[in-house]
Amino acid sequence: MIERLCVIGVGLIGGSIARSARCKRLCREIVGVDADRANLHKALDLGVIDAAFTNATEGAAGADWVVIATPVGAFESVFEALRPVWAERAIYTDAGSTKQSVIEAARTIFGQVPPNFVPAHPVAGAERSGVEAATDDLYQGKRVILTPLPATSYIALKRVEAFWQAVGAKVSDMDPAHHDEVLAATSHLPHVLAYALVHMLGQKNAQQEIFQYAAGGFRDFTRIASSDPKMWLDICLANRTQIVPLIAQLCDELNAVAGMLDKRATNDLLEFFASARNARQQFLDQAEK
Amino acid sequence: MIERLCVIGVGLIGGSIARSARCKRLCREIVGVDADRANLHKALDLGVIDAAFTNATEGAAGADWVVIATPVGAFESVFEALRPVWAERAIYTDAGSTKQSVIEAARTIFGQVPPNFVPAHPVAGAERSGVEAATDDLYQGKRVILTPLPATSYIALKRVEAFWQAVGAKVSDMDPAHHDEVLAATSHLPHVLAYALVHMLGQKNAQQEIFQYAAGGFRDFTRIASSDPKMWLDICLANRTQIVPLIAQLCDELNAVAGMLDKRATNDLLEFFASARNARQQFLDQAEK
Repeated sequence: MIERLCVIGVGLIGGSIARSARCKRLCREIVGVDADRANLHKALDLGVIDAAFTNATEGAAGADWVVIATPVGAFESVFEALRPVWAERAIYTDAGSTKQSVIEAARTIFGQVPPNFVPAHPVAGAERSGVEAATDDLYQGKRVILTPLPATSYIALKRVEAFWQAVGAKVSDMDPAHHDEVLAATSHLPHVLAYALVHMLGQKNAQQEIFQYAAGGFRDFTRIASSDPKMWLDICLANRTQIVPLIAQLCDELNAVAGMLDKRATNDLLEFFASARNARQQFLDQAEK
Repeated sequence: MIERLCVIGVGLIGGSIARSARCKRLCREIVGVDADRANLHKALDLGVIDAAFTNATEGAAGADWVVIATPVGAFESVFEALRPVWAERAIYTDAGSTKQSVIEAARTIFGQVPPNFVPAHPVAGAERSGVEAATDDLYQGKRVILTPLPATSYIALKRVEAFWQAVGAKVSDMDPAHHDEVLAATSHLPHVLAYALVHMLGQKNAQQEIFQYAAGGFRDFTRIASSDPKMWLDICLANRTQIVPLIAQLCDELNAVAGMLDKRATNDLLEFFASARNARQQFLDQAEK
């Protein structure tokens, strides 16, 4: 049982961690830290947290479990704030969407990554943001990837794993660099793509009409373009060395399609589309496992 | 009341036209034409159609309402098959996703577009295909765009409009070229993009792992990559003069994002993502109207 859980960043992700922990009776008390006072007050009003701080040093003092759930660009300053109150017997973990940048931020502040910090990424989200979007079951059935380092405490790792399993997640671990590579492909690139497409269409003269005649496919396809821009700015900057080459690869694929269209290369195009459909079917088959 | 409705191409779209017409009691009898015998037998077994033909000339003979719902690449051969039995008092219409190519196919076969042919595009679909995916209410609340020509019969136009309204659709009309421009942006380009992304990821060594850790965003984003490849091959070829320049524009947008990432142009990137989110919000606001 966690005595005092401190959640830093009480948005959709952090708020859902708090709600899930309370719902599963994993902790006695929840302290929330958020720079956004309005959001913090909402978290208190909604009962998501029991006490509220705008300062991470004060909020984390005395907590035996601290989760950092801010945008990844803020991690260095969060670690800086945590340093004076860092407790050897507490567990520290996070929910950042990129893992190498988080580990690097810890190294910058602590010289080396503390053994009781367990880097983690719950692969879940929604296009809504803020504590009002948080739910009791956001992580139910979702994947959580832990990216421990050789120096990570085995006990801390097992406790974080048990926490996520208790809220219904499927936990696995991965090398931090490999995590960033895989997530760049499945999450970061699609977000960039959705933003780019909607940005492009939003600038067209016929924009209003274009959106008016868009069907359900467009709505689904662009859903992730409604995600929090600040959060995604941080993720894209933090993982830019993975994302930029993927953007180039995707433009190569798109130009290949354009070339086949220009040449009316019927068989090649059909093969291209059909192999994409087969690849997605494999994804669906795996997702059902 | 339609006496004999002939649906040419009894897949998701054509099958749903048949089912909707039957459900709303708009016709007495439904004849189906399909080159795919297995699909045709399923349509009969499911009661979607009352009689089945593999040949459009035979199937359409005696029908007072003919809807062409094949992939758009087949329209020229369908018009050729219809020519010997074309009836002045019947109504002819279609469900093709591109309109200029359909009109061009009619011109090629008939010299000019017959006044009793009303080009139409129900903006609805699903990633499933075949008659088994057809439903009674696919068109409920969906948009249907009619693209009449100056020579189109006013009475035929009004009857086709009334048909779609009777099955619950919101009908509007548009110039054929403008239709193709708008749909290239909202439908054809997103499909190309989803195919290109999934094709690219499907070729990576880490493919299995990539798909394993993909979340709900990826599932939604790539849903349209499960669409029928043959149908989309035809659409993309038919509207390639619109689609190819949009692919180039999108690569420009993507390269702009890559450039901002390389330069860590924080403010520009945030503005880019935020304006995309705003544009999508406008789309959602309009969709609710």
